[in-house]
Amino acid sequence: MESFIQWKKQCLNKIDLSKKGSVDEDISHIVSVLNNSDRFFTTSSCSGRIILIDGVSDNPDVQKQNCSWLFVTHKKCQIGDLVSALQKSRGDAVLKFEPFLLHIQCRQIEDGQLLYSVAVNSGFRNSGLTVGKKGKIIMAVRSTHGLEVPLSHKGQVLVNQDYIHFLVEVANQKMDENLKRIERFHGYLQSALIPADLQRSIRLETGEESVYKRRRKRGQIDGGQESREIIPIELEDCMDSGFDLFQ
Amino acid sequence: MESFIQWKKQCLNKIDLSKKGSVDEDISHIVSVLNNSDRFFTTSSCSGRIILIDGVSDNPDVQKQNCSWLFVTHKKCQIGDLVSALQKSRGDAVLKFEPFLLHIQCRQIEDGQLLYSVAVNSGFRNSGLTVGKKGKIIMAVRSTHGLEVPLSHKGQVLVNQDYIHFLVEVANQKMDENLKRIERFHGYLQSALIPADLQRSIRLETGEESVYKRRRKRGQIDGGQESREIIPIELEDCMDSGFDLFQ
Repeated sequence: MESFIQWKKQCLNKIDLSKKGSVDEDISHIVSVLNNSDRFFTTSSCSGRIILIDGVSDNPDVQKQNCSWLFVTHKKCQIGDLVSALQKSRGDAVLKFEPFLLHIQCRQIEDGQLLYSVAVNSGFRNSGLTVGKKGKIIMAVRSTHGLEVPLSHKGQVLVNQDYIHFLVEVANQKMDENLKRIERFHGYLQSALIPADLQRSIRLETGEESVYKRRRKRGQIDGGQESREIIPIELEDCMDSGFDLFQ
Repeated sequence: MESFIQWKKQCLNKIDLSKKGSVDEDISHIVSVLNNSDRFFTTSSCSGRIILIDGVSDNPDVQKQNCSWLFVTHKKCQIGDLVSALQKSRGDAVLKFEPFLLHIQCRQIEDGQLLYSVAVNSGFRNSGLTVGKKGKIIMAVRSTHGLEVPLSHKGQVLVNQDYIHFLVEVANQKMDENLKRIERFHGYLQSALIPADLQRSIRLETGEESVYKRRRKRGQIDGGQESREIIPIELEDCMDSGFDLFQ
């Protein structure tokens, strides 16, 4: 445990090296909840973004290395902003919606399992754990939600204004759904981190069950009675080839 | 360990319930390698596909539930097939490239860590582990590689033929890159599963290092001397907000 506390101290004292330099507004409450717990700390985060990237033509493999950002927003996108950004394309521009992404270092594997449950049940079904050589346990919250649309080739725009208009609507709908999932994640996270005895007394006082407990009754969370005992939904077994978990 | 052997037996004796009913050709060698090892078995797989889905208009959230497949291929896509499939759209059609996806149940967490290393170093950077309540350890091999392009709205096609032509090229390039990564995964997997002493004698005989070892020397795999000791690359730490691991 000693090393977890040291890692957390070192990490939270470091300078934020991201382009933006601060935690995104829409997830600062989640980052706070996690960093205020002695079982977790966040190592990287993005609330979700709509981004127009200009890549090198005829070389899709190096798109990420040799690309420039023509436009980025962590909020809903305005068509005018996208159109004017697209005019600056000299290579192959691609519009992407990238959903909420969060990496959380966890004290113990059970803490990672708990967060995995919270994430999957909030709709972040591509989440997963990694276990490093020095015992670092990282939970990555990832969504299946995406959008990746080529819009120009060698600087020539390939689609018309109506299509771009439609695309902005689709991207903004995805941003809305992303925010709903973030709020769901926040709610379940709070319920999951409240000690079980306190949860019971809240339920007795209010005569209500917690959000987390209600979800479990609908069979969407698979777990025991106490929050620490909540266990991930298991992946469907024995479906070889072509089987899509999320259909 | 008893239960792992039982799970494996049950799983491999079950009927394949996928739409296709068999393992995709391009990954059957990988599935065999894993299922022939006493440390792993596969629970679901898809070699990668180009798919045209027709979803319900104005309701992106239920796209996956109430959608029909207009077209699917696990090989490269022909423009004629895509155009004729698109003509059948009555709702919102979306073209997707979905890369290689593999779920592998692992005997121990260390086996999962080994596979995670192999996956990330082959280019499948969204891979991750889950640990279930009965001790089931599942490694999911997932890629960041994708394409998701809306093509029609309420049955009306939104783009012209030239754009569809360009899109088919992009999707086919992604399919090629996906196959390269699959072959890389197969190579690294084989090296990783060869016992360390056998690896050493092969190197002495051939006077060469293994593919896996060569990659490690270039600093792309972080690990010990024996294959079982190979440990995942650790996620970059302390990069809060907007930081993208894969840039």
